[in-house]
Amino acid sequence: MLKIEHIGIAVKSIADSDKLFSLIFNNNSYKKETVESQGVFTSFFQLGESKIELLEATNPESPISKFIEKRGEGIHHIAFEVEDINNEIERLKLAGLQFISDIPSRGADNKMICFLHPKNTNGVLIELCQEIK
Amino acid sequence: MLKIEHIGIAVKSIADSDKLFSLIFNNNSYKKETVESQGVFTSFFQLGESKIELLEATNPESPISKFIEKRGEGIHHIAFEVEDINNEIERLKLAGLQFISDIPSRGADNKMICFLHPKNTNGVLIELCQEIK
Repeated sequence: MLKIEHIGIAVKSIADSDKLFSLIFNNNSYKKETVESQGVFTSFFQLGESKIELLEATNPESPISKFIEKRGEGIHHIAFEVEDINNEIERLKLAGLQFISDIPSRGADNKMICFLHPKNTNGVLIELCQEIK
Repeated sequence: MLKIEHIGIAVKSIADSDKLFSLIFNNNSYKKETVESQGVFTSFFQLGESKIELLEATNPESPISKFIEKRGEGIHHIAFEVEDINNEIERLKLAGLQFISDIPSRGADNKMICFLHPKNTNGVLIELCQEIK
């Protein structure tokens, strides 16, 4: 794991939350992107070498809709940048950890991503991500 | 806000969670510290320019005990490093945001810290922190 690539925050409305986080960070969102396959509309803020990713659901079946229904708005996941996502999946599976899916899929921000199952990781949803070159 | 200084994760047992996160990060905790005034025993991992801070309650009245009782283990807060904590508190108060306490107190890792009230910040508990020089 190289660094915290981003922290994902589930919000009801990016229109509203963009204003709030722009104020808190004293800095504007630099990018918005919809990833239909993940059911998310995203907005990114840069902070040092990491990003904050606001996540709004694009449909009622989105994992973000379900998260907000169950727990309300809040921190949804932490993403760590890795050099080789397939090697890391292999290393962690061999150590006994489970993935939600162990086949990387295309996420926002030009990344291949996969998620460790939070039942094995103290309730923290951990994403591994690797930049697509 | 300069960078993500750390992410705080509430855990039941640092003894157990240290093993888990050492495995995930492929790297050991570099420091442990008790902050009795905050009711926490902490363990730190470095990842790039940021840290992961595991938080175990030192007593049943600790905010970490209450958090785990209510929501289970998981991500507790995000801390952002600021240059001047008093200036940032003033700036955010003027913008209408509320703090849990707007007087900075001493936290772990040689920092002055304060927390924005999560009711105004999409359910995210945000810590501001400034290194003590």
